[in-house]
Amino acid sequence: MEPVNLKRLAKELNLAISTVSRALRDSYDISAETKKRVFELAQKLNYEPNPYASSLRRQKSKTVAVILPEISNNFFSLAINGIESIAQEKGYHVLIYLTHEDYRKEVSITRHLQSGRVDGVLMSVSANTEDTTHIAELYNKGIPIIFFDRICDAIETSRITTDDYDSGFKATEHLIKNGCSQITYLSFSQHLSITNKRMRGYLEAMEHYNIKPDKKLIIQCSNDNSELYPMLRKLLGSKKRPDGIFASVEKLAIAVYHVCEELHVSIPGDIKVISFSNLETASLLNPSLTTITQPAFDIGSKAASVLFRMLDKNRVQHPNETIVLKSTLVPRNSTRNY
Amino acid sequence: MEPVNLKRLAKELNLAISTVSRALRDSYDISAETKKRVFELAQKLNYEPNPYASSLRRQKSKTVAVILPEISNNFFSLAINGIESIAQEKGYHVLIYLTHEDYRKEVSITRHLQSGRVDGVLMSVSANTEDTTHIAELYNKGIPIIFFDRICDAIETSRITTDDYDSGFKATEHLIKNGCSQITYLSFSQHLSITNKRMRGYLEAMEHYNIKPDKKLIIQCSNDNSELYPMLRKLLGSKKRPDGIFASVEKLAIAVYHVCEELHVSIPGDIKVISFSNLETASLLNPSLTTITQPAFDIGSKAASVLFRMLDKNRVQHPNETIVLKSTLVPRNSTRNY
Repeated sequence: MEPVNLKRLAKELNLAISTVSRALRDSYDISAETKKRVFELAQKLNYEPNPYASSLRRQKSKTVAVILPEISNNFFSLAINGIESIAQEKGYHVLIYLTHEDYRKEVSITRHLQSGRVDGVLMSVSANTEDTTHIAELYNKGIPIIFFDRICDAIETSRITTDDYDSGFKATEHLIKNGCSQITYLSFSQHLSITNKRMRGYLEAMEHYNIKPDKKLIIQCSNDNSELYPMLRKLLGSKKRPDGIFASVEKLAIAVYHVCEELHVSIPGDIKVISFSNLETASLLNPSLTTITQPAFDIGSKAASVLFRMLDKNRVQHPNETIVLKSTLVPRNSTRNY
Repeated sequence: MEPVNLKRLAKELNLAISTVSRALRDSYDISAETKKRVFELAQKLNYEPNPYASSLRRQKSKTVAVILPEISNNFFSLAINGIESIAQEKGYHVLIYLTHEDYRKEVSITRHLQSGRVDGVLMSVSANTEDTTHIAELYNKGIPIIFFDRICDAIETSRITTDDYDSGFKATEHLIKNGCSQITYLSFSQHLSITNKRMRGYLEAMEHYNIKPDKKLIIQCSNDNSELYPMLRKLLGSKKRPDGIFASVEKLAIAVYHVCEELHVSIPGDIKVISFSNLETASLLNPSLTTITQPAFDIGSKAASVLFRMLDKNRVQHPNETIVLKSTLVPRNSTRNY
């Protein structure tokens, strides 16, 4: 089978190779009609440019990278689906890079991308990232970066996130209205913007309802199960255990469920639980889990739309807008006051 | 800050640029000691080669691609963690490409990879893939491909999978021993090797226990919820509904749970459910779900190990071994015979 390359496209269209090449690069000096003919044939024959040869010239890889902490979290798998729905329309490939909440891995990935492998980056930062120099380096190379969910305030670019402060307030208020007063806030990291905003919402709700805040009730958990589970056993097994848990991520709510089952602590009888979560099985758990559900798919598709708007316009400067989508509190049995 | 390039490495090590370049390419004419010095400094300074310039010469991208259907399935997210655990050791980046069970998307991704963006590919084929020409094309370009879980028999390369036939037999036997006789087998696709092996296990178990097989009980479901849910409502709402469900993927078991809840059909009272699943919340569901749990992490790490063994040796020929890891049946309340 004859290879599908510029020469073949040129021959079939009766055009010069350089015309085809410029048409594919969307050059201003080629007519719209010719471009249309070239694009249609290229698509029909599944033409794939040699990435190394052509990228050296036109510096477009037609790929975007998504850097995120993990995919076992349903929020991220839904957000990826949102991103891909837009990328597919635009004919872009999506490369997913996982940091596994490891700062060094995040540094390695951003360095790897500095050399121009992708046209743009969508990113949700790792929970262990304090220093963001590596992100600034990538940004300074002129590679567009858009943050979603776990944003980075130090870098001036667009951010797509949810109403974390409001949701934190509402989650805490929901527990208080269902009879809780000793409410523990669980999170993995205090470096993350979203963790802090959720915590601020928690603190303000406590204050609003005249509940004295107790620093011991704000717990930063280890992401390592061999540390997390013993900590939860100690917390939930003690006589002075809290009567409410507000988990900032679903992994912590699942761990709380496991430990309550093990210790025969009844949810919601002994302790009520609410969590940020996009868990598909939230309504099927025993008891069903009250969640703050983020519009994960929409966050992903919005982030991708903003990125492609930049790429389409070949804009070098980064826009700087913060788009906030609303989360929804879904009350279920884990917070019910019988 | 001075850029980290070949020139800088050469200067700091007091070597010729060409020596550093050849050392980094692991050339035979550079001593082991010199290579060690070069690698150590390159690592220390986080040296990243220009992918386009250097790949043209040495044809190594230090990246591998993972092509898989979706990540909302826990099997795949665990398998990715297994792959990354090995890639990290080897200093490779892992790019994840999702097909979303779309054959055309799988074709587009494999074409995209033909141009040499990655050194090797780990793949689990889409449920809608019948024609595998696009995989053969990639394979014929000399890019190593290893299949895991959803293998492709038409291509002679290594495959890492689980004992699907045995597990299918055991799952069905477990339902029969707990009193079921009208057992429905649910799957998404009949093209997949694993679906067929699981179904063969189901059929042989039925025969072994002298239960007449009924073709109506073998159902190929739509992956589209707007078709899947009405179908399940019809199946589970009918007077002649099955007394056992064997779901070949966890997404189907979750859908069955949702529909049973909606129709007030009791699990396990009215119908017992077993599913292939790596769901983290399986034991927390109401009722807890009996699962066939695949060694997902190990499948991923084994597949990556086989791939890197090939890449290390720079072997052009593809090995052809099939590695089978065992799954585990975990009995829980969804199949209990009270």
